[in-house]
Amino acid sequence: MLLTTLYIIGITAEAMTGALAAGKRHMDWFGVMLVASATAIGGGTVRDILLGHYPLGWVANPQYLAITCLAGLFTTMVAPQVVRFHKVFVLLDSLGLIVFSIIGCRVAMDMELSPLICIVAAVVTGVFGGLLRDLICRRTPMVLHKELYASVAFMAGGMYYAMMYFAVPETITTIATLVVGFTVRVAAVQFGWRLPIFKFEEVGKVEPKELDSQP
Amino acid sequence: MLLTTLYIIGITAEAMTGALAAGKRHMDWFGVMLVASATAIGGGTVRDILLGHYPLGWVANPQYLAITCLAGLFTTMVAPQVVRFHKVFVLLDSLGLIVFSIIGCRVAMDMELSPLICIVAAVVTGVFGGLLRDLICRRTPMVLHKELYASVAFMAGGMYYAMMYFAVPETITTIATLVVGFTVRVAAVQFGWRLPIFKFEEVGKVEPKELDSQP
Amino acid sequence: MLLTTLYIIGITAEAMTGALAAGKRHMDWFGVMLVASATAIGGGTVRDILLGHYPLGWVANPQYLAITCLAGLFTTMVAPQVVRFHKVFVLLDSLGLIVFSIIGCRVAMDMELSPLICIVAAVVTGVFGGLLRDLICRRTPMVLHKELYASVAFMAGGMYYAMMYFAVPETITTIATLVVGFTVRVAAVQFGWRLPIFKFEEVGKVEPKELDSQP
Repeated sequence: MLLTTLYIIGITAEAMTGALAAGKRHMDWFGVMLVASATAIGGGTVRDILLGHYPLGWVANPQYLAITCLAGLFTTMVAPQVVRFHKVFVLLDSLGLIVFSIIGCRVAMDMELSPLICIVAAVVTGVFGGLLRDLICRRTPMVLHKELYASVAFMAGGMYYAMMYFAVPETITTIATLVVGFTVRVAAVQFGWRLPIFKFEEVGKVEPKELDSQP
Repeated sequence: MLLTTLYIIGITAEAMTGALAAGKRHMDWFGVMLVASATAIGGGTVRDILLGHYPLGWVANPQYLAITCLAGLFTTMVAPQVVRFHKVFVLLDSLGLIVFSIIGCRVAMDMELSPLICIVAAVVTGVFGGLLRDLICRRTPMVLHKELYASVAFMAGGMYYAMMYFAVPETITTIATLVVGFTVRVAAVQFGWRLPIFKFEEVGKVEPKELDSQP
Repeated sequence: MLLTTLYIIGITAEAMTGALAAGKRHMDWFGVMLVASATAIGGGTVRDILLGHYPLGWVANPQYLAITCLAGLFTTMVAPQVVRFHKVFVLLDSLGLIVFSIIGCRVAMDMELSPLICIVAAVVTGVFGGLLRDLICRRTPMVLHKELYASVAFMAGGMYYAMMYFAVPETITTIATLVVGFTVRVAAVQFGWRLPIFKFEEVGKVEPKELDSQP
């Protein structure tokens, strides 16, 4: 119940960030709805396809898809205001990340998959929506070189899994994961915490063409 | 029977537009076949994966895949002529769009999915082939900022669903949807009808970096 | 047994080429692990999703996913050495290509799919990992305009299928396919064998806008 409410807030906020990205690419209303929906429910969709978990959430509950499309269109009308309140969005997005991660972990746990896969399901659910958005809008995915994001999803998934494994009541587990994950994510944005970057440049003229050609 | 014939015409035409896009990127024959097939049967593939509708059409009927590969290779030999007849292609592509939409809607209806999902299935089938083509060829997807395309698929899906729902005979429903959808699409190309564009530029120096970093 | 050993060598080598590509894009550790894993096990994942073959290999055997993530991280520490040994990588990558193709073909044969689909499964398994890597890293996929790669997978798949069909013992079939496929691939790199390129430029001012706008 709590999770469902937070989930709806999360997909609405994510859909709005997707719509803004579409607007930067001058897309039409269909593009706005597509990118908004991919951002908001793409992570769960990729997770379900990878796990073979059918029917997909939005196929079983089309109202979620309707929400993301409407949130996208709504954003086209209020875009300047959205930017003004961008700090609110950072908070909502952080909340959404943890909610998505918890839901992803639970889906995999219900399928009785191994711990690593449960945590991967949390990360995929939390992260792939933004990844899809950036691929469609043709920008280098932010999640791959910005502040802690996937790492927070990983941590939240691991914490949720461990607490459930040790039979902590579900409500306590959910709330504790939400509070800790949210705090870590907001701190990461605030203080610019990030994973180490791997920069690799080939030195000299010795272009390893053959290596490069390996698909 | 009529639909199957039109479907084969549709995937052939779509495969040829995909091959031309591959040629603009100087791909080799494999790339040509890949892009041709993704353009022609990618929409149905994405639909079937999203709905969990297995086996995929071309896995059950590999001849469709053979057709799209051969149409792609054939295009490499006749590319200049293809361009000369581009008006024919616009017509075939418009026909294909409606045929794909009808087939997509029917698949979802056979699975007894909700009306919204049936119409979404129509749009995905009609639109995602071109979307995949543009992603592989690294150009901003045309469908997201050009004339009415997804909207026509949406309308065709909705019309087909409604007529079937009200028990209009299937042949009449199919022909009516084909005629109306085709006419609207051709008119959209002719008169440049399009959905409103959402342009969003961030104003001033207040770069909402945090917002941007939300994956 | 032989195949499993070679498979682990193959995914390790592929993960390392993926990590180098991520390093060229200045990704963080998560990005490195993502691109490494997509490169190494993305081909099999796409094949299983297309064929509806669940659970996915790495969901059933998470240790493969752990290997690719660790290989990716390891690469960040030894990148300069990796480049120095790039010829070794070309060999490992060529071996991996054939191993992946054989495994892909076998999965489809176990599902009793048609010959064409078995060979397509070989190609998808061999090729799509590199394709995903290049899409995420936003470069035009190498496989679409470089030396014979997909063609070698196609040939290996066809050879394996034909020998199994004619009841050649599996060990002999596997070894023969490995030797022939590996030799052809290495020769293709050495001598620059490639498929014909399809270059297509629109001539004159007669921009076929309508054609271009077909999604």
